[in-house]
Amino acid sequence: MDFQNFFELAKEARGEAKAELVFRGGNVVNVFTGEIIQTSVAVTKGTIVGIGDRYVGKHEIDISGKYLCPGFIDGHIHLESTMLTPADLVEQAVKCGTTTYIVDPHEAANVSGADGIDYILDNTADVPANVYVMMPSCVPSLPIEDNGCVFDAEQMKRYLDNPRVLGLGEVMDYTAVINAAPDMTEKLALFDGKPKDGHAPGVSGKALNAYVLAGITNDHESASYEEVMEKRRLGMHIHVREGSAARNLESIVRGIVQSGQSVEGFSFCTDDKHIEDIHAEGHIDHCVRKAIACGMKPVDAIRMATINTARHYGLHHQLGAIAPGLQADFVVLDDLEQVTVHAVYHKGRDVSPFHAQYELPQGSPLRRTMHSLPVRPEQLNLPVGETSDIIRIIPSQIVTAHETARLPQENGFFVPDGTYSKIAVIERHHNTGRVGVGAVAGFGIRNGAIASTVSHDSHNLSVIGDNDADMLLAAEHLRKIGGGYTLVSGGKLLHTVPLPIMGLMSDAGFDTVQSELAAMIAKAHEMGVPEDIAPLTLLSFFALTVIPALRITPRGLFDVEQMRFIACK
Amino acid sequence: MDFQNFFELAKEARGEAKAELVFRGGNVVNVFTGEIIQTSVAVTKGTIVGIGDRYVGKHEIDISGKYLCPGFIDGHIHLESTMLTPADLVEQAVKCGTTTYIVDPHEAANVSGADGIDYILDNTADVPANVYVMMPSCVPSLPIEDNGCVFDAEQMKRYLDNPRVLGLGEVMDYTAVINAAPDMTEKLALFDGKPKDGHAPGVSGKALNAYVLAGITNDHESASYEEVMEKRRLGMHIHVREGSAARNLESIVRGIVQSGQSVEGFSFCTDDKHIEDIHAEGHIDHCVRKAIACGMKPVDAIRMATINTARHYGLHHQLGAIAPGLQADFVVLDDLEQVTVHAVYHKGRDVSPFHAQYELPQGSPLRRTMHSLPVRPEQLNLPVGETSDIIRIIPSQIVTAHETARLPQENGFFVPDGTYSKIAVIERHHNTGRVGVGAVAGFGIRNGAIASTVSHDSHNLSVIGDNDADMLLAAEHLRKIGGGYTLVSGGKLLHTVPLPIMGLMSDAGFDTVQSELAAMIAKAHEMGVPEDIAPLTLLSFFALTVIPALRITPRGLFDVEQMRFIACK
Repeated sequence: MDFQNFFELAKEARGEAKAELVFRGGNVVNVFTGEIIQTSVAVTKGTIVGIGDRYVGKHEIDISGKYLCPGFIDGHIHLESTMLTPADLVEQAVKCGTTTYIVDPHEAANVSGADGIDYILDNTADVPANVYVMMPSCVPSLPIEDNGCVFDAEQMKRYLDNPRVLGLGEVMDYTAVINAAPDMTEKLALFDGKPKDGHAPGVSGKALNAYVLAGITNDHESASYEEVMEKRRLGMHIHVREGSAARNLESIVRGIVQSGQSVEGFSFCTDDKHIEDIHAEGHIDHCVRKAIACGMKPVDAIRMATINTARHYGLHHQLGAIAPGLQADFVVLDDLEQVTVHAVYHKGRDVSPFHAQYELPQGSPLRRTMHSLPVRPEQLNLPVGETSDIIRIIPSQIVTAHETARLPQENGFFVPDGTYSKIAVIERHHNTGRVGVGAVAGFGIRNGAIASTVSHDSHNLSVIGDNDADMLLAAEHLRKIGGGYTLVSGGKLLHTVPLPIMGLMSDAGFDTVQSELAAMIAKAHEMGVPEDIAPLTLLSFFALTVIPALRITPRGLFDVEQMRFIACK
Repeated sequence: MDFQNFFELAKEARGEAKAELVFRGGNVVNVFTGEIIQTSVAVTKGTIVGIGDRYVGKHEIDISGKYLCPGFIDGHIHLESTMLTPADLVEQAVKCGTTTYIVDPHEAANVSGADGIDYILDNTADVPANVYVMMPSCVPSLPIEDNGCVFDAEQMKRYLDNPRVLGLGEVMDYTAVINAAPDMTEKLALFDGKPKDGHAPGVSGKALNAYVLAGITNDHESASYEEVMEKRRLGMHIHVREGSAARNLESIVRGIVQSGQSVEGFSFCTDDKHIEDIHAEGHIDHCVRKAIACGMKPVDAIRMATINTARHYGLHHQLGAIAPGLQADFVVLDDLEQVTVHAVYHKGRDVSPFHAQYELPQGSPLRRTMHSLPVRPEQLNLPVGETSDIIRIIPSQIVTAHETARLPQENGFFVPDGTYSKIAVIERHHNTGRVGVGAVAGFGIRNGAIASTVSHDSHNLSVIGDNDADMLLAAEHLRKIGGGYTLVSGGKLLHTVPLPIMGLMSDAGFDTVQSELAAMIAKAHEMGVPEDIAPLTLLSFFALTVIPALRITPRGLFDVEQMRFIACK
């Protein structure tokens, strides 16, 4: 509460003075009681001062026939994944009604450590939304990673008193938690009693007990209702994820509805959602809409999008509902079936005219994060024998299969083709010259290569193609321009999206980024990438050593299930 | 979580070492999912390490056929009201399954300020239960009170970092909140974002909006479901109260059940419950039992007694459920209909052998809190006219009615009889010599007087009787012995319960206190007090200026509805 102005606000609450603004006659969604009540809501200085028909405002907005909801909350989001600046993303997503973001700046921290986190905090300080940050817990995500920085418990301490820092971010290294590794224990203890975001895909039984013992309070990786319920039984809060790649909402929501389970303990999150998908289908409003379409009561879906998340993160004294003393963050909906967003307010102000102002200085070190050597042609050679371990793509998923196959070869070296692509991951943070090479089945690219410095979680330079020359050209181009995506065919640079900020984000704005990305994706499909594969997303995940089954890093192929390298270079 | 021992505990959670203790085969009540699941629970060093059939313990307790619940929580309790020391009370109530107490030491603070609060904290530091303290917010409860100490925002600051201090205690002076009085605003701001206990009997409409605006997070004064729901709609958490005097459970629980309202946002509390009632019917277990008898699902009643309260006070990372990492506070029940308590565990240890050890030194200033002058006979004179304002007792309630009547008189002064008793409230903290005198209808005492230094909220010395001589004797006796209750008849001291600690509490133990109180109450009824009136309880509330309608203080009769004195002396 804004106690500086309490005397004035209390006077208005008592009805002895007019409020600045009254939303009159709307159907107000009450997330506490589950009722929808036609009444008015009075707001002054961004705070809700009273609810009731008899409040009078200096300015009034008639929303008769419409529904007034609390602003939506994204329970877990990596802002970097959209490739826009954080403020750019918020500017887009807030128009869908998402007025609060629980952000894990895991990618920025993996490239630039505390400087990356500070960038996310600074860049979102003045957006028309509430942006909270969880401290990235796995930087690097595993000890074997070649990432940009180490971000440890000691460095986290200076963030403990920051009111925008709520707890510990997605603890991907669940093995370290379960085995009580000392470094991890130090981070866990630092946030004792605070929210700790989980990441426990398929973790079950005693291992899950050990993970929860550590005080991990939520999980967003569950794909089925059964998996969700095992976690709920141990007290975990569940963020039902509906992003660009991972879409778990339908199966979980249908499970909740069919079993009659209370939605207490459930929220929504996007985790990673690209801007084009936000434009096409929406953000958290899309989760609400889809949950209702799956049979959930509208008020329950709205609870998952608002108060449940606020309460989990200890924000319910500030936001997440329509009640006196809370922020006037509202979504006005035309209806509760299509969940059509009519208007969005943050602290009582319409968000639509907002345009991000923040600019990262041209001289910032965050614009110079390519610290790598040119790749020598022989570094792309992959020696093969009778059979080789290969990464098999599973359409529409980011998990891969670990297979063995006889690869096409010449002089003992792999020769890629339309069936088996070559992939290389090039260390780009510390000039180590490390390059890991492998083979991928199912990508299908012909006569060219695609490269990216968005490459979870260490964000080295990943390049995939059917010939070494195009792969080398693509890699070298990104090295020179400071990172991004590029597509090369027949020795020519066809499309490039520069991502000058940490090699992860562009400040060129959505339209520029989007049109070039779309052209690149279309060209990739033209070059043979199957239509049920998202070429750029997939390329960004080949190096992610915390997701099964087989991955590739600058040190070679990594077997996630065994947690060991297959071949070290 | 106990991160000092995390390495060891995690090993046991993984099943690689035996836990200290396993509760085997019970029906475990899961307050997250609402399920009851037959399984085992492993405990080490007071912490739950894992849940599942395959855990093995060095020591095992077979609870097959029984129900394992999280320890119960009393959401709001004034420990002083039982007249035992805090530790004595906990020793009794914990056997009923209440392992956590949210305590408001309002009475102790009104007599002895911060010293009184420190006494409650110290006295309960080593009990076999979790005792948390809310900072008394209304000391004095109104500016017109003659209490012992002022406890203001400045003095509260040194408690802000105490992990056992959770927020601001019962804000009785709702008028000060609604009108944003500066002293009150300072206290409210100090606990911004933390729980703030409410006290808003009958507060409604715009006044209630203003009260909630201030961040008051809960209320335990609601008597009806309709009143409850108005508060729930504004986001208040509801403690359903079932104490000795005020009993609101049945009407509220029936309302919840009949309307199908979720129990999220509801808890139980006792507020004030005497030890004899705890012995006769139980404590929070009684609330659970009664709620089930009113038609509530057992799991929902248990949620109200456990996780809902824990979550409201931000304790859910430590207690309130059976989950890994939480304290092993358990109630073992024989059944879910009678809710028969079989055993109680705090941090994995059976609480039944516990006996309080703490002793307040004989020289403590808390044992010398009678600072009053002997009453002169003429101070008890009450001049009366044609009609006088009188306090009318309403059986079974603490609210009184404000009536006018022609009182029996001689020489212009009131002469009490069996119809109209005389009451006097004597200031006892600062030797001011103030004595307020009034007339009470419905108490019925004949041939004697009863006096008490337990006299909410300022705890002056209240005495009621039908003749001045016995009243003077009773008052003088309590002044000499340092406070307590005493009953006098025909010039003789018949029964006395000394309450040497602040004039509020005895360290003589339950049996001594109880037998003498029972004798005193029986004698009072014999002397004419109707059977449907609790003489000692009622005597303790005549001076309570925050409860309607007419009250008596050392400064005279006080009209609570008008918030003003009728006659100042």
